[in-house]
Amino acid sequence: MKGMDTADSPATSCGDDCPVSATAALIEHKWATLIIRELITGKKRFSELERSLISISPKMLSMRLREFEKRQIVSRRVLPTIPPTTEYQLTPLGNELEAVIEAMAIFGRQLITTKPRNCSDG
Amino acid sequence: MKGMDTADSPATSCGDDCPVSATAALIEHKWATLIIRELITGKKRFSELERSLISISPKMLSMRLREFEKRQIVSRRVLPTIPPTTEYQLTPLGNELEAVIEAMAIFGRQLITTKPRNCSDG
Repeated sequence: MKGMDTADSPATSCGDDCPVSATAALIEHKWATLIIRELITGKKRFSELERSLISISPKMLSMRLREFEKRQIVSRRVLPTIPPTTEYQLTPLGNELEAVIEAMAIFGRQLITTKPRNCSDG
Repeated sequence: MKGMDTADSPATSCGDDCPVSATAALIEHKWATLIIRELITGKKRFSELERSLISISPKMLSMRLREFEKRQIVSRRVLPTIPPTTEYQLTPLGNELEAVIEAMAIFGRQLITTKPRNCSDG
């Protein structure tokens, strides 16, 4: 009963207005957090991101960056070089993701030292 | 494998031994963080998780839970009821994910209040 206003079904806690869902919708895609991690250290050109994120396809990288731009996580700047180069940078909102990445790093250190259970299936 | 000084290319920072990558490999799947969020409040039966995570398929839920079990994030307990019921609970390692979920919640609150950019493509 506590604090249950209009959203009283457990399911609604998972709706579009749930902060965890909102972040999940942004980062639960392949490469998403790793792209953000690369940008935390500063602006990067498309080619630099491509080199750092080994095995990412240019199509996938473009798709993620476009999504981040749309969500105002990343800003894009086209530099007037010949040929033009494109730089990507975290916006002030995007920079706030550093706390998520940092928490992931802390957890990951523990995860790496824990061997997966030996299950019968691969 | 630790201490491989030869691995000095930026790409290697994204390898299997990178803590952020390790966590990403676990949570960058659809529903993963939302399942964990449900379990942070305590152990849950399969059917309870299914009800809370509206629109998740039983197959998807099973798959995620099995993966979490394998990575020792979640433990499973079969209760001797008729019919038997299965309870899922975060392990001590799994509980450490609370910091990630909390960081996601904090970020999500800011994300929700930021309207997506009006792009020409959908």
